[in-house]
Order: sequence, then structure tokens, then C-alpha cells
Amino acid sequence: MPEPTFHELAQLPPPVLRQLIRRGDYTGHTSGLGQRHLQANLVILQKSWADEFLRFCALNPRACPLLDVSEPGSPHFARLGADIDVRSDLPRYRVHRRGQEPVEVSDIGTFWEADFVAFAIGCSFSFEQALLDAGIGLRHLELGRNVTMYRSSIATRPSGRLAGPTVVSMRPLKAAEAIRAIQVTSRFPMTHGAPLHLGDPALIGIRDLARPDYGDPVPLAADEIPLFWACGVTPQAVLAEVQPELYISHAPGHMLVSDRLYDEL
Amino acid sequence: MPEPTFHELAQLPPPVLRQLIRRGDYTGHTSGLGQRHLQANLVILQKSWADEFLRFCALNPRACPLLDVSEPGSPHFARLGADIDVRSDLPRYRVHRRGQEPVEVSDIGTFWEADFVAFAIGCSFSFEQALLDAGIGLRHLELGRNVTMYRSSIATRPSGRLAGPTVVSMRPLKAAEAIRAIQVTSRFPMTHGAPLHLGDPALIGIRDLARPDYGDPVPLAADEIPLFWACGVTPQAVLAEVQPELYISHAPGHMLVSDRLYDEL
Repeated sequence: MPEPTFHELAQLPPPVLRQLIRRGDYTGHTSGLGQRHLQANLVILQKSWADEFLRFCALNPRACPLLDVSEPGSPHFARLGADIDVRSDLPRYRVHRRGQEPVEVSDIGTFWEADFVAFAIGCSFSFEQALLDAGIGLRHLELGRNVTMYRSSIATRPSGRLAGPTVVSMRPLKAAEAIRAIQVTSRFPMTHGAPLHLGDPALIGIRDLARPDYGDPVPLAADEIPLFWACGVTPQAVLAEVQPELYISHAPGHMLVSDRLYDEL
Repeated sequence: MPEPTFHELAQLPPPVLRQLIRRGDYTGHTSGLGQRHLQANLVILQKSWADEFLRFCALNPRACPLLDVSEPGSPHFARLGADIDVRSDLPRYRVHRRGQEPVEVSDIGTFWEADFVAFAIGCSFSFEQALLDAGIGLRHLELGRNVTMYRSSIATRPSGRLAGPTVVSMRPLKAAEAIRAIQVTSRFPMTHGAPLHLGDPALIGIRDLARPDYGDPVPLAADEIPLFWACGVTPQAVLAEVQPELYISHAPGHMLVSDRLYDEL
């Protein structure tokens, strides 16, 4: 079967899209796919880390809004879709082993362990849809870039061995759009909610907007204000610090597409 | 009867407070009075201006959220309280005659005309209560000053002879408080709603924050952002431009205290 076009992919309802991904017929990013359904960051941990991580999510709901958590050993997210299998239903994964570079794969069936616990965490792809629906243009999308992200000086609330700074994503907006964006994103606590900060980046420990820690830089116009939202990269940054022996995440931009509408949870 | 203390006044439910005011036993400002009930700006116009003004309010709901409008000749606001008489129930009024300085009086019974129409317009005293309830401190209240107001370059939508700039009130807040304040005030469209602007004052035509057009200046700390809300002084500024032959308003800070709770409408 030939690789489908992006336009064809964008028409597919989530269960059909996931089937395609499961068969290995699509391994690209999921931005703009899934017909306005909620997408999720994926973190898979061994049981020895899972309880600490669950508590980390509970203590840091802005950065880590927990959409679902599997039973130990189960690859399913019953709350997000009846037939989801997290071993195959994301287009690309990263397998992280302590002391090694992460390996990118499109299926993790061979890596699966009996005590793995999978976590689905809210993702800004969904609140960006809500902003676009409100008529608010997003610079990084207009430029075809990844969103701009920084390690801030806002500490997460630690849970056991898990601790570190909150990673924030930044979007520049004019004042009236910024006010509207705060109103819109406040309605979506499960996809990071309202911004954590706006205005002077130095107040949250960001020295140079032009040099993000993750993603791509975007230019700010003179009449624009930077707005900073808690970012789902936070748990990955924290895990990279503590280096569990083995854990698996989605590859950046390659999310789980759920059966829930973006404004449903 | 001796003038009651402010503490005693603050305990009075609105109908009792209004009785006191009606008898002429209290002529002071109403900030902090009325037990968390909605307060209103008052504008009284002759019929020849009333229709244009009603349309002005409809076209500019952020600056002029209309809480009630009387029948021509009637001094009552049925929506705001059963026994309200706008000729006597505010502590102080300003009577404006074309080409003359306004006269301050505590009762307008002798000025009342058979074609007068009274307008009750939402007032920031009420949304300030909501901000205080959310734990957000307000600089001008801490300093015991009147709120800072400016004529902005944001034009109102004109209605007949009525046109002019939107007057905005400014409150400085830290970024996290600013985000929370936008969330809180968005819930109260009848008391000016969310801010119109935040950040750089020059973008809305304000050259010097230290020199307000109305009210008192307040200092901004280095980590604070100015937030600008549409202000109920807008209609008075517009009326002062066109100078109707005769109109009456509340004296600044001396509002109508209604029987509606601040978050009821």
C-alpha cells in the first residue's frame, strides 16, 4: 500500500488512523491528524518507578495532566479508546536505556515487559486546536516549526526520586489575543490549562528567548508578549535527569491519537 | 442621629443602607459597603438623549454594561431592587448643565424632570471584590487611593452624537496574578469583564502611566504588568464632550448599591 497523503490521513477517524499506524503504514508526526480528537504524550515505566511517577503527575497537574494510566502489564488505555494498544498505536517511540542514546522505533512489542505501566499525559496539540478555533494564529504553526520550549526556574513539586524544573512552551501573541488565549486555555485543564507566566522571560529564569532548550525559536514582534504554558516535555526532562534503567516515550510530535474529542475530558 | 461609623455601615444590607442614604444620614462613598452586592454607575438623561445613549451602551458593552434602564419619567430600577428611588438613594450626585461646572448634591428630587431616563451601568467595585476573593491584592486599595484611569486610543463605537475614546482603569499585577485576574474577571461581563489590554501602555495611546487622566497614579514594581479594563467613566467622558443641556450622574465613588449580589447578574 502506498504511503497515504497528509490530506488523506487528516480525514481518518482515530480508530482507522491507529489501525494504519499499527500496521506500520504511517510513521510520521500526528500534528493536525485525528479530526480534532485529544492527543496524548506517552510515558511507559517499570513498576519500580510507576508509583513515584503517578504521584509526580498528581502533584504537577499543569505540566503532567494525567489522561489515563494502564494496569501494570496492560498496554491498554480504556478511558481513551476501546481498542488502543500502546505497543503499536503510536507512529514512533523512543526507547531509553540508562547511559545510552535513545533508540527510535515504530513498534515496541519486542521491548514490552510484564510490569510496564503506561501513562497518557495531556498534550498542547489539543489546546492549540482550541486557540485556532478562537481565531488566534500561532507563529510556530505558520512557520511550520516545532513549538518553542524552555527549562524554566519554576520547580516541579518533587515525588521521590523525580524532581526538576518545569519545561514551558512559549507562544508570542498580541495583548488582546493573549487575554483571549488565557480565557480559552483555562477551559482545558487536561491539556495544560492557562499559561503559567507571561511577559518578562527573566522572571522565570529564561535568559534568551532566541535560544530555546527544545523545539525551534520563533521571532517576536514589538507589539507581542510571550506567553508560557506548562509543557508535557516536563516529565521527559525529569526522567532524563534520573535515568531509570529502561523507559519508553513517544518520539516528539508522534503522539497517541485518542477517541476522545479535544474538549471532552 | 449621629453619623454611623464605616464599620457599622459595612454591616448594613443594601435596603437599610439605602434608607439611611435616602434620609440624608450618609453622604460618603460606597466602596466596601453593601455587603458584596452589585453597585452601579448612574447616568440620567433627558429623553432627547436617552435613545442614543441606550444604543451607545448596546454597542459598547465592555465599557457600558447596562444593568438596568428606567421607564421615561420613572426613578425606579425594578431589576436591581424593589424600592430603589434614584432621586435619593445615592449618597452624592453631580448635576451637569451645559457650559457650567457640575454641582454636587445629595438628593436630586428638585431637579427631576418628567422625561428623565435613568441608566444603571456596571461598576468595577464589584469585580474588585471578586479579585480580592481570589486572593489578588489591589495596589490602589492598599494605598487608599482611587483607581488609576486613562483615556485610551481605543475608540468606542459611536451612536448618533455620542462618540469618543474608551476610558480604561489600570491595575498593576505580577504575571501569575494577571493570568488569574483575567480568568476571574472574564466571569463578570456585567462589570466590564476581562481586560481590554495588558503590557505596553503606548499600544493603546497611553504615554505616561504616572500621569492618569482620572483617579490617582500608583507605582508599578519591576516584576509587574499593567492590566487595563474598560471603565464606567467612559460614558461620562463621552457626555462631557457633547455637553447635553442637562444630565445627572453619581459623584465618583458614590454609587447606587443594589439588592443583587455581585456575582448574580
